[in-house]
Formats: sequence, structure tokens, C-alpha cells
Amino acid sequence: MKKFINNPANVVVESMEGLELAHPDLVKAFYSPNYMVRKDAPVMGKVAIVSGGGSGHEPMHTGYIGRGMLDAACPGEIFTSPTPDQIYEAAKKVHSGAGVLLIVKNYTGDVMNFDMAADLLKADGIEVEQVLIDDDVAVQDSLYTAGRRGVGATILAEKITGAAAETGMGLKELADLCRQVNANARSMGVALTPCTVPAVGKPSFDLPDDEYELGIGIHGEPGRQQLKMEPADRIVERMMEPVLEDLPFKADDEVLLFVNGMGGTPILELYIVYRKAYEIATRKGLKVSRNLVGTYMTSLDMAGASVTLLKVEGRMREFWDAPVQTAGLRWGI
Amino acid sequence: MKKFINNPANVVVESMEGLELAHPDLVKAFYSPNYMVRKDAPVMGKVAIVSGGGSGHEPMHTGYIGRGMLDAACPGEIFTSPTPDQIYEAAKKVHSGAGVLLIVKNYTGDVMNFDMAADLLKADGIEVEQVLIDDDVAVQDSLYTAGRRGVGATILAEKITGAAAETGMGLKELADLCRQVNANARSMGVALTPCTVPAVGKPSFDLPDDEYELGIGIHGEPGRQQLKMEPADRIVERMMEPVLEDLPFKADDEVLLFVNGMGGTPILELYIVYRKAYEIATRKGLKVSRNLVGTYMTSLDMAGASVTLLKVEGRMREFWDAPVQTAGLRWGI
Repeated sequence: MKKFINNPANVVVESMEGLELAHPDLVKAFYSPNYMVRKDAPVMGKVAIVSGGGSGHEPMHTGYIGRGMLDAACPGEIFTSPTPDQIYEAAKKVHSGAGVLLIVKNYTGDVMNFDMAADLLKADGIEVEQVLIDDDVAVQDSLYTAGRRGVGATILAEKITGAAAETGMGLKELADLCRQVNANARSMGVALTPCTVPAVGKPSFDLPDDEYELGIGIHGEPGRQQLKMEPADRIVERMMEPVLEDLPFKADDEVLLFVNGMGGTPILELYIVYRKAYEIATRKGLKVSRNLVGTYMTSLDMAGASVTLLKVEGRMREFWDAPVQTAGLRWGI
Repeated sequence: MKKFINNPANVVVESMEGLELAHPDLVKAFYSPNYMVRKDAPVMGKVAIVSGGGSGHEPMHTGYIGRGMLDAACPGEIFTSPTPDQIYEAAKKVHSGAGVLLIVKNYTGDVMNFDMAADLLKADGIEVEQVLIDDDVAVQDSLYTAGRRGVGATILAEKITGAAAETGMGLKELADLCRQVNANARSMGVALTPCTVPAVGKPSFDLPDDEYELGIGIHGEPGRQQLKMEPADRIVERMMEPVLEDLPFKADDEVLLFVNGMGGTPILELYIVYRKAYEIATRKGLKVSRNLVGTYMTSLDMAGASVTLLKVEGRMREFWDAPVQTAGLRWGI
């Protein structure tokens, strides 16, 4: 294993420390339990948006804390759900009286622990809404999940609801918007290489030198099948076809097309993926009005990519375009 | 070789196509010869800033085209200098009458071809200044270079001079500022893995499973030595020490600290690198007033990182903070 780490046990805390040192104007870190909040939290009158999940997916979620996106994020250990007390303490810290929206990726541990945190918050008299993200069309049930996994739509949901919250939107309406983003989004990913969890020290699964995994999960969970390596355009077709069929997306739908790198794939290749994904979407008659191309939700050092299509409706485009100032996503400020 | 590519011969053009499809508001692509320009070029009254170099370092340089940074970029084939006609055509396209600044990384082929392009431009009566970037302290001469190699300072120089050009700064003053940025910057990188050039199909050099290369070049050129794998903090010490000694940086210097990922290293690890680099810089008494942490100058899929320290003087901080709107770097707009 060759990584920039010291003790595998300290990876999460040291990376949090680095993030705060680099962005002291944006974030503040707390430890034991570990969480990070907006520097200016709590923001009075605004619904507090809290997310979290296992570490190893950076910049998600700590990199999305800031104006126009998250109020707090709770990083668990690598590929491990945050504990209820992390979520509870983070939400308490950023709650300003307007309620808390918890955005939860659909993994069994996350669902359970966010549920427990929500109960604790409600017991304190805090109004809470939870929204589950489950946009991955690859498989129905999986290693850590009953139902579909939550992947790329998480970032779109956090950006769009984050902007909406800045306008003063109330908790119920915000939760409905978040559910609508999830309902309108579909994703699929592939891995060219496995990833290596620092504490384990060896690749998380076997992938022969001439094969890739179609439908990979963000923790290296098995997908649909291992296939012989193919040209980029063919791989993109295999991701886009099930995504397009699933909603289903229809001619004249306005969409946001998100091409995501898994951590070990350079931007040169992501634009080759975007080129083909855009061609497939427009050939089907979709109107790609917005996009995102880059390394936004990773699986440690995995080489791979995912595509997410979001059907843009209502005020989603306005909220997407709104200013955001986080370590991982920034424009308009 | 497992990459998102189709025909290795088409990697550069297909990635350019993807970049233009994703950012039609920012860039416009031209082919045969290949170059990309600002969508709104030429910008009247502004010095045109043109850079370029071999491909495989994305987002550099095409990802830095836009308001507040480059007017044009010329991507050569992978790890291959752009040809004089690429540079000449790009500069002609963006020149608005206020002159052209060519920012050139110090590699023998780049220097020669930018020189020839400058001669062609001057023959057309266009005022041209060239600035050579050579900030890499690792080695004196190298595989493709007489003297020091140009690495991370390139991005800092492009951002700072790009912002200065937007204010209407004249060509000579702009070239002096660019030279000052280069003179004030020092860098060093390490590789944990080699990279694989698509047309070659196998790793560019040998690096045993338990070793890393200290002082790597951005094309996999040999550095100072191969060392047994060490904790991140020790690797960062080995990069920072020669950087600090070289200028030399002194207590109370204001600096910008740039931690760059080489393409295959996730952001989780880059923040662990930043944490230690920041600690070393501040322990020496430097005032880290600005930073940049992310994947900004890559070597294809290489796992690795580099650190760049820039002594911030004069108006550099103001120009760094100024708005920039490119695919690879964006704030304030």
C-alpha cells in the first residue's frame, strides 16, 4: 500500500485537520465525536442541513460545508457510518431554531445511525426531516444496502437544497425539494481498479488487469459484472443505457449531466467520458442545460467514474446556479 | 493499461471536445492545429496570455482558460511540446493589439517551439514577451530539460498574471510580474506510482511496490532518489526542506502554500500532506496567507503530490484573490 498517510488509525482526523488549516474561513472542526461545521454556524433563521457518511469519499461531505451547501458534516471512519452521537452533536451545533434537514445516503448503517440521531434531536424538541438518497441503478440490494445505494445524486441534492435553504425556505418544503432531486436522479459507476482501505492495506477486491467492474459501489461493493476492458465510449454506453431507461428520461427533458471521478482517474479521462455521455444524452433528445465534471465523490484511490443524470424541474436550475462557497465546490462568491 | 480512452491517438482531441461540450460558455476549441481560446477572445485592450505544453497534465493548461487567467492554451500530444504553428495560431486568434505574453514551462522542446512561435508573431508586428517557469528544486538538468523544470509555479503565475492583465496592465509590466512570481516560487514533487502514457500502454518507469520517487518530474523523469515508503509526514519533510532552503524562505515571509495532486491521489491524502506542509512552514515562521489544495497539474494517472511555496510580495495577493472563471479554477464569479 502506497498512500500519503501516517498511522492508518489517524487518517480521518489528520485529513480533517488539514481541511480546517486550508480553509479556516469556511469550516471549523470538532473532535470526539468528529464533525465539521460552517465557520459562521448557526445561521439564524436558516434550516440547518447536515450530512455525513463513511470517510474515503472526499471531498464529500466535509468539502461541501459552507455558504450555499452544508451546515455540518459527520465523517465516519473509512467506509464506516458516522455514529449517532456525531450526527446529534453536529446538528445541535448548527441548529438555529429553523429545524434540521438530514441528507442520508442509503446504506444500512447510515440509515440506522441517522435515525437514532433524529430521535435524539426530536427528543430535544428540534424539528427534523430526513431524506434518503438512493439513485444508483446498478443493483437492487448490495453489500451494505437494502434497496438502491446512494451515490452521485447526493452532491446534487446537497447543492440544490443548500441554495434553497439560503433563501429561507422552510424545513418541510426543503425536504420535499430534496426528495424531488433524488426522485429525478439516476446514477451508475464503473471501477477500473479496486481501492485500498488504509487499515486493511490491500486492495478491497480482485479485478484482473484486463477487466473492469460495471455497476461498482462507492465502497467497492460488487456491481453487475466484470467485463473485459473496452474503449471509453463503450463503457459510457453501458453506464448511460440503464440510467436513461430507469427514470425513464424522455426527449425534451432538461437534464444536468454529472461525470464523477472515483479518486484515481485524472480529469483528462473524465472529459472523454463526458464527451460520450453528452452525445448519448443529446442523441436521445435530452437538453443538457447544466453539468459537473470532476472528482467530487471518491472511493479512496479507486480508478473509475460514474455518471449521474438529473431531470431538472421547478426551481432546481436556479438553485444549482446560486452561489456556493465550499472547499470542494465554489462559484459566484 | 486500464483508462477511459478510445484510440490512444485521439486522446487529446477527444478530451478537448469534452471540455468544450462541458464549458461552451468559457472556451472554444480549434483543431489542426489544436488550441483552445476564451469564448470572448480577443478581449480588447487586454494583453493576451497564452500558455501550453504537452497534454497529460490536465486541468493545466486548457482548464485554465477564461476570465482572469489564460486567453489561449495549446495542448501538445501527451508529454509532447506543442508545435510552433499551434502557438502562433492561438496567439493570433486572441491577440487584441495589446501584445502577447507567452508563459513557458522550462522543457527543451517547449522553449524551442515557443521561441519559434514568438519569432513568427514578431514578424507579424505583434509585441511578444516570453516568461520561462523553472521552479522545481529537485534536480538541475533532467530528461527533457536544461536547467530546472517548470512545475507548480506555472499555475500560480497564470492566475496572478491573468488577474493583473484584466486590470489593463501593460505587456512589459505583466512579464515582469510573471518573472517575479517564478523567482519567488519553489517546488518539489514525489511519485508513489509511475504513470502510463496511452500510446505506450505500460508504466513509464519502474517503481517497486514499497518505494517512492523523491523529486519526480511531471513526465515521470527521474528525481533525486527512490526511497522506501515512509509515513506521509516524513515524505512531506523531504519535499519541504529543499524548497525552504532554496529561495531561501525566511521567518515572517508571507507565502502561498500549494499542495498539488498528480492525478491518481485522492483529496483525502492531499489534506494530510497540506497539514504537515503547513506545520513545517509555520514552524519556520512563515505566514501562510493563501493556499491551494487539489489536483491542478497532473501526470496522467500518477499517484503522487507536489508542494509549491510562493513568497507573496507586492500586489500578488490582490491578484490571487481576484475573480477567476475557468473550468479548473473558479471563484468570485
